[in-house]
Parts: sequence; structure tokens; C-alpha cells
Amino acid sequence: MAVSISNNDKSWVAVDANSDFPIQNLPFGIFKTSNQGPRVGVAIGDQIVDLLGLFVLGYLENLPFERSDFETDTLNAMMKRRKKACSDLRLRVYKLLLSDYPDLQNNQHHCDQVIIPQADVEMLMPVEVGDYTDFYSSREHATNVGTMFRDPDNALLPNWLHIPVGYHGRASSIIISGTPIRRPKGQQRPSDDEPPVYGPCKLLDFELEMAFVTFDGKPLGDTISTDEADDYIFGMCLFNDWSARDIQKWEYVPLGPFLAKNFASSISPWVVTLDALEQFRIPGPVQEPKVLPYLEYSGNKHIDINLQVAIEPEGGNETIISNSNYKHMYWNMNQQLAHHTVNGCNIRCGDMMASGTISGPVPESYGSMLELSWKGTKPLKMNDGSERKFILDGDTVIMKGHCEKDGVRVGFGEVKTKVLPAK
Amino acid sequence: MAVSISNNDKSWVAVDANSDFPIQNLPFGIFKTSNQGPRVGVAIGDQIVDLLGLFVLGYLENLPFERSDFETDTLNAMMKRRKKACSDLRLRVYKLLLSDYPDLQNNQHHCDQVIIPQADVEMLMPVEVGDYTDFYSSREHATNVGTMFRDPDNALLPNWLHIPVGYHGRASSIIISGTPIRRPKGQQRPSDDEPPVYGPCKLLDFELEMAFVTFDGKPLGDTISTDEADDYIFGMCLFNDWSARDIQKWEYVPLGPFLAKNFASSISPWVVTLDALEQFRIPGPVQEPKVLPYLEYSGNKHIDINLQVAIEPEGGNETIISNSNYKHMYWNMNQQLAHHTVNGCNIRCGDMMASGTISGPVPESYGSMLELSWKGTKPLKMNDGSERKFILDGDTVIMKGHCEKDGVRVGFGEVKTKVLPAK
Repeated sequence: MAVSISNNDKSWVAVDANSDFPIQNLPFGIFKTSNQGPRVGVAIGDQIVDLLGLFVLGYLENLPFERSDFETDTLNAMMKRRKKACSDLRLRVYKLLLSDYPDLQNNQHHCDQVIIPQADVEMLMPVEVGDYTDFYSSREHATNVGTMFRDPDNALLPNWLHIPVGYHGRASSIIISGTPIRRPKGQQRPSDDEPPVYGPCKLLDFELEMAFVTFDGKPLGDTISTDEADDYIFGMCLFNDWSARDIQKWEYVPLGPFLAKNFASSISPWVVTLDALEQFRIPGPVQEPKVLPYLEYSGNKHIDINLQVAIEPEGGNETIISNSNYKHMYWNMNQQLAHHTVNGCNIRCGDMMASGTISGPVPESYGSMLELSWKGTKPLKMNDGSERKFILDGDTVIMKGHCEKDGVRVGFGEVKTKVLPAK
Repeated sequence: MAVSISNNDKSWVAVDANSDFPIQNLPFGIFKTSNQGPRVGVAIGDQIVDLLGLFVLGYLENLPFERSDFETDTLNAMMKRRKKACSDLRLRVYKLLLSDYPDLQNNQHHCDQVIIPQADVEMLMPVEVGDYTDFYSSREHATNVGTMFRDPDNALLPNWLHIPVGYHGRASSIIISGTPIRRPKGQQRPSDDEPPVYGPCKLLDFELEMAFVTFDGKPLGDTISTDEADDYIFGMCLFNDWSARDIQKWEYVPLGPFLAKNFASSISPWVVTLDALEQFRIPGPVQEPKVLPYLEYSGNKHIDINLQVAIEPEGGNETIISNSNYKHMYWNMNQQLAHHTVNGCNIRCGDMMASGTISGPVPESYGSMLELSWKGTKPLKMNDGSERKFILDGDTVIMKGHCEKDGVRVGFGEVKTKVLPAK
């Protein structure tokens, strides 16, 4: 039976109307329970489908997977099977969860084994990240930073409209939602007339980003074109690129950010497949000046993803401080991947590539405290009456994201991280 | 029996006087033969000791290793056992190879199994690199670059004498000696008045560097002090940080080098342990202005390693173009590691950290074509009469390194890479 996905389809698993995880989504993640080890799961409503369980019970027959692809603590083995296999796997799960498909839903004994409340599990890092790259692809963000730190009249650097600027980041310190971070310590130079000092970062910031996860690419020396890029992207998650602005300012010339970023980056636990995002594609901005041929692309390659950032002070309630959208990207993922490989750089299964801060055109849509508080000159009001220029100890930063169209909502859940004081 | 290493000791395996691999060295690598799969080996003279063979034959008893630590295609499993275990392992191999120690040398049948000519094997990437970091720690190199591209009177940027400046690089494209590379293609902007162009890099360069490989560090949020750093460093290898100068110039502001570097970095196959390098430690330069306390260190933490670069044109003989030394580093490995972790960044077993280009005080000791040919203004003469401003297609770049003291030579072998034309 060929499976096609319809926005009218429902699952026999109850899904709340506001859930990020209807049957049209089916994102992948890694979870464990108090008595079962790490394994691959798929979210449906507030439940998880245990793919290891489905495999053992024979529901995944005639797909090119082995038990060890699901009985594991990362999605990498599954992703090693590449795009077609993973798309087919998602369609199989779709079919099994369809309201009019009887096989699994009518076997209560099997359902008890493989349908698990999300409330009962611990989510783990979904991917073992090989290399992590961070782009800088929001024109509004680059313009805001350029305006604040360089020249308002020439805010964009000369290369920005020609290159999806990116740099390498740290894979080891990418952590999952729920893991608290420590305020980093390091060198800063508060005054240009004084020597640098050592101490806790005073200007701790988040950056609202989305990241994509790749399949294995081509051998070293080969390129991936914008047309081919979709075949090498598995899916996306929310990404908080924690940033220490004072450390960054002192260290970043000439080789880029280093300790200002590599103390932690936080991601949401569910990887939403590119397949599930397909219907939310939209056109991107007109790119002027015209890009070089290797960066040209066809079709709608941007995605309409509503994004939100909130701060929850210690013991308080959250205040929403930004509403942005992934559609504000100037450079899309296809261009980013084509650029990344144009010199023959090889990508591998599990590589993660983040968008860069996603800022929209109005101040309420900026994607960092640096921009929202305009370098600390415009503090943000919290619901509890306090103010924020940057992130304080005890604050929890929460990012959420979802697409919505024709009555279907496909979401990412959240990435939620509490900041602990420096040691 | 406690083992101590003496410079007077000899092995019963014949070792040429000019060999990089006497019994005082014993570096680790991964090799395979035409009929045996990848495994861990130790170099002695022009032979390799097969550690998997030693393990199977019982020579590694009472050491905390398992067969799978040696029957594998990376050193990572072995390094997971940490410093003490790896040091003890090296001492065991030392004892077995000592001229007056009979056990292995008197068992010809065993020797036939575990002593293998290097000429008969293929060396593989020794380490699965998690994160790769590149520092920028030679004062002469930073000064030369600053003089050429910025201001001769203020060649060093304000942060350089306070921070061991570093940035994240690409792990996926680190390749072993002998693997040819393709000239990369990408965006360059030859004229500031014209739009950028796309094409093969015209200014292909090497950078002479050394890299160190780490054991597992501490959890995210903890720091490693300069005093503790040695316990987290397994060993070192030669490192050629291939660089596309024209791509670099156009892309690197403000986030650092990206495609100019990530198309390839080449390393030598043998990891020389920090233990073997201990006797070649020397004092470093006086650091003025005084560094912040977390960067202070005690003892001799620099190392006297003679380094050499040669170019071998297609079908020709090599011309030595640089003689440098690792002792010219301003910042040592202990400072680099302390800085890298001062913000709580976690390091993992198999991380690789390169020194940055190692240039000495005189032009003949510069570590890149950019400096040796002074931006192409002073072409280098080759033995065959040709000239080089940068690296040409068909050229092979060869880097070698060794320590020498009290009649003992501990070397790194070579990293040798041929440049193929762009595709």
C-alpha cells in the first residue's frame, strides 16, 4: 500500500488540537525510561511510539533497517540508511497510526508495549554531532550587529550579500533541552584603556536559531548542489546558540568567536523531518546583487516557521520577549549546504548546521538580547516587574517553534535551558 | 618490574641511527596489511609492533586493556583508558623490545607474528577526531600576517599577547599523509572594485603546524588548569593546515576562516606520546605583559622540535624551503588547553588541537608560502630552476619533524601530500 499524507488524516492516538505532534509531523528522537535503555522514538501527540518495539514486533518489516538502528542512543545509525529509507520509515509509522488502519491499534497488548506517554520518559541528545557549523544568514541580524558595532550606513560587510557566511563551532558542548548551563568565565576587556580581566561573563545572551541535521554527504573533494541539498538533510530542530558578548567582543578578531560560544549550545529533543516541513515551504527574498551560479536555486526553499522566545525568571512566570520566523532568512539551507561543500568539504551523517540568529524586521522579532535590548540601552520589562538587558542567573530561556497551515500544525516542541551561576 | 627509560637502551629490533623511531620513541598508529584488518601498532625503526598480536599472545597481561581496544581502526578506544594506562602500555612495549629482555625476542614464532615491516602496511587515520581546534600561537607568524595585511607598526592585534587565540576547524576533512588533495574552488574577490568571482583557488598554501590529541577531559562546566593539562594530552603529530589565501581573504571577516581551511588538513600517521617528548622540554619565552593567573604555568612546557618543509614538484626532486622549530611557540599546549576550557568547554577523547603556523624569527624559518614568498613578492627558487609563490598543481608538500638530544632522536616521520588540479 502506497502511503500519502493528507492534512485531513487523524491518528487513533488522541492528539490535542494545539499539539506540535499530529500525525502529519512524526519527528524522531532518542528516549529512555526508568526500566528501558535508550532507543529511537517518534512523537505523536503527548505519546511516543517506540521504534525498537515496533521493529521487534515485526511492524517494520521490508524496510532496510536492523534492530541496532533503533536500540541505540543516537539517530545516527538510522540516518546512515539515508533519505529514502528514513522517509519510508516515517510513512510506515504514519500508516500504523492512521485512524482507519487496524493492525496496531487493534492489538492492545502491542499498543501497551510501544505507545509510551512522553511524561514517563527522559529525552536524550538525538544525534551524535560530528561537525557543527553555524551560519549567519539573517539579514536583519547582521544589519543590527553591524549598526551597533560598526557603521549604521554600511552595516552589512562587503561579503555578506555574496556569501552565506558561516564558521565552525563546537560539537562537544551541544546539549539537550532541560540541561542547565553554567554562566561561563573568561577574559573580557571592559575598558580599552585597561588590561583585560578574568571573571564571570556579564553579558550572557541567547541566539534564536534553527539547525538542520545531515545524512552522509559525498566523498572529500565533491560538491553538493542547491538542487541536491534536500537529499542530504534529514530534519531540523530548535537551536539556542548561547553567547557571552563580553568574551566575544575581546576575542573574536581576527579568527572569529571561540570561547564566547563553545561553552554550550542547546537543542530541542525532536528532529522534525524535512518531509514534514515540505508543505510549509515559501519563496525567499529576492537576492540582489544576483548570487553566483553555484548559489542559485529553484523552487520554494524557505520555510514558514513561527518562533518564540520567553524568559522565565527563577520562581516566576515566563514573559514572551520575541516573536520571529524562520522565513526571515536571507540564505536558505540549500544555499548553505552548496556553499559549505563548494570547496569539496565533506559532510557526514549527524553533522549539524545552525542558521545564525533569526531576527525579523521589527524590534519585537529580534533573536537575541543584544538586539532586543539594543546593547543594553533598552531593557525589557518582565511580567514580574523586573528588567532584563541580558540573561541573569536563575533565568530559564525557552524557545518554541511551529508551522501552521490549512488547519495543520507541525511543531518542534521547545528548547528550555536554565542558567546557573558561575562556579 | 618497574621500567625506566634510558637514552643508552637499545632494542633487539635493528634501528638505523637516523631513524625517527628508536626504542625511546614508540609512537602509536593504526595500520592494516593486505590480509589483516585495521589494528593498533607501535613503530620501532622501520618495523611495527602489532599490539593486537601482543595482546592475543598474552604479552599485555595485567594492563587495563581489552582486545577490542587494539582490534579497531582508531586509537580512541585505547585512549579511553586514559593517561596512566597508555603510559604503562608504552612501558610494557619498551620492556618487550629491550635488547636484554628475552621473552619476545627469543620466541621467533611470536616475532614473526607481531613484528611487521612498515613497508608492508598501509597506515590509516590514527584518531577519530571529535572536535578540531586550531590555535594561532606563533608570535612571528601573527606578526608577519599583521605586517602584511594590517599595520607594520601595530602588527599584533590588541588581544594577541593576552589570549592564546584559537578557533574551531573542520574535523571531517582531516586526512592522513599520502592522501592527495584537490585544489579547492570557491569565491574570491581579486579586485575590491569588482564583484566576487568563482573558480579554483589561485593562492594555495600550506601551514606548518604541530597538533596534539587529547584524552577525555572533565564534564561540561569544569576547567583544566595549566598544571593539569599534561594529564589530558596523549601525544602529538605533524599537521599541515592547508589554506586557500584568496578564499580566506574574502570570507574571513567577521567570523573567521571557513572554506579557506576546511577542504583538507593533513596529519602524519604516528602519534608521538607526550611521555616520549618529555626529555626535550625547554623553557618558553618570557611573556610580557604578564598573563592572567589562569594562563600562568610552572616548569618547562615548550618542546624543542626541529621542523622542515619541502616541496617536490611533479616528477622532480624535493627542495627544502623552511627550517623551523616548535620551540618558537609563544603559547604552549598547557596554556592552550587551560584557555580552551576556562569557560567550561568540555574536551573529549580524540579531540585534536593544532598550534597554528610555526614561524621562526628568520625568513628561512617561516611556516607558510604566504610568509616565505612575502605575499608572492619574493618567489622561492626550486632545485629544478622553477619558482614558487604559492603551491602549484602536481606539487607534493612534505613536512618532517624530530627532537634530538644526548644522541637520541625522537621523530614524527612525515606528512606528505600531493596537490591535484581542481575538478
